[in-house]
Amino acid sequence: MNARQPDANVSARRVVALVSGGVDSVTLAHYLHVNGAELMLISFDYGQRHRRELHYAERVAQRLSVRHDVVDLVAVGGLLSGSALTDVSVDVPHGYYTDDSMRATVVPNRNAILLAVAAGVAVARRADAVAFAAHSGDHPIYPDCRPAFVNAFSELVSIGNQGFVAPEFTILAPFIDMTKAAIVVLGDRLGVPYEATWSCYQGGTAHCGCCGTCVERREAFAVAGVPDPTTYLA
Amino acid sequence: MNARQPDANVSARRVVALVSGGVDSVTLAHYLHVNGAELMLISFDYGQRHRRELHYAERVAQRLSVRHDVVDLVAVGGLLSGSALTDVSVDVPHGYYTDDSMRATVVPNRNAILLAVAAGVAVARRADAVAFAAHSGDHPIYPDCRPAFVNAFSELVSIGNQGFVAPEFTILAPFIDMTKAAIVVLGDRLGVPYEATWSCYQGGTAHCGCCGTCVERREAFAVAGVPDPTTYLA
Repeated sequence: MNARQPDANVSARRVVALVSGGVDSVTLAHYLHVNGAELMLISFDYGQRHRRELHYAERVAQRLSVRHDVVDLVAVGGLLSGSALTDVSVDVPHGYYTDDSMRATVVPNRNAILLAVAAGVAVARRADAVAFAAHSGDHPIYPDCRPAFVNAFSELVSIGNQGFVAPEFTILAPFIDMTKAAIVVLGDRLGVPYEATWSCYQGGTAHCGCCGTCVERREAFAVAGVPDPTTYLA
Repeated sequence: MNARQPDANVSARRVVALVSGGVDSVTLAHYLHVNGAELMLISFDYGQRHRRELHYAERVAQRLSVRHDVVDLVAVGGLLSGSALTDVSVDVPHGYYTDDSMRATVVPNRNAILLAVAAGVAVARRADAVAFAAHSGDHPIYPDCRPAFVNAFSELVSIGNQGFVAPEFTILAPFIDMTKAAIVVLGDRLGVPYEATWSCYQGGTAHCGCCGTCVERREAFAVAGVPDPTTYLA
């Protein structure tokens, strides 16, 4: 992906983008903005331990001067227990993700729920796209980050809102074939202030440096050859 | 549909059923129960004017002695404004539904949102089905009540939760080819106490008798030849 070449699929669109406040989604917001999308950001409070990330989502919205809504889905999160992200009785995995440890961070049907709400908002606001920052590193474990899911969801929105949604409505996942390191390379070119992003799943006040997502974050910067501005506790 | 003949697709299943408290969904709960499903009910508070319906959902759960969760989606409802069901600045249509008046009651992407949450709960609880009470009278206007939508959604859940969901997972919509009158005939045979159901969209303390859904309710009992136990204000 060439940061200097406009993405023709983005430029004329009115887009509701899911932004958690992490590296991937913050880069996505900048990417869509630079490419001329009319942008609205949406974040979700589903009771995640690392709710601190929402603060960084709000900061992107302020930087880009775009609307931002944080949707309260705490009641939903409470029903989807059993994931380390929402259930304090389940430990957040440390070290490199293995298949098993990454599985502990799966929230059942998460992206379908978040995208369904975002698509509802998009239809209500006559937007013609919803964007999210799924990338290739997510595919092995998170089935709802894979291309087949994105295509099926895009189809579902068209079928489920026939007559109420623009025929050109689509789900944009421009990073779906990129690694996290490639996203950091792109974001670095776009001037994304990565010190204003949050990854750690532990829910502390600084990045722990040990949980799966901290390890993944660190590695992405190292592989990208981009200075990592993050302060890690260990 | 023969009420005395067990539905083989239901009997061995562990089902999360969407129950609003209206005629269709209350009949659905009884139908699934009689057919031997292991049943959990889920309702949604999305800020609908006719929140009173939730009381009747709770009563079904008590009658059938099954778990019932009411999920707070008020924040979501607030973002999906423009429908007469959630936006007090939009009038609830009176009289027989026309295409235009029924359109005023469309909540963008509603069933995708509600089914996505229910499917997440189903996956978390290792259930193998989500059921909802879409019927043929809904098809002309509500695209998310049509068979194509149900099939697409069922496929989406399988793709989006691969490895985490039972291969036999499905969306059950046993009434999808039935009229509302046929549902009332079925429910009458099953002994559904229709005085303990709620339809009116106006949000008053008794059925108004004038709004589109009251007219539809009245007509369903009349066509079914089943005594209507409802007290209408007009």
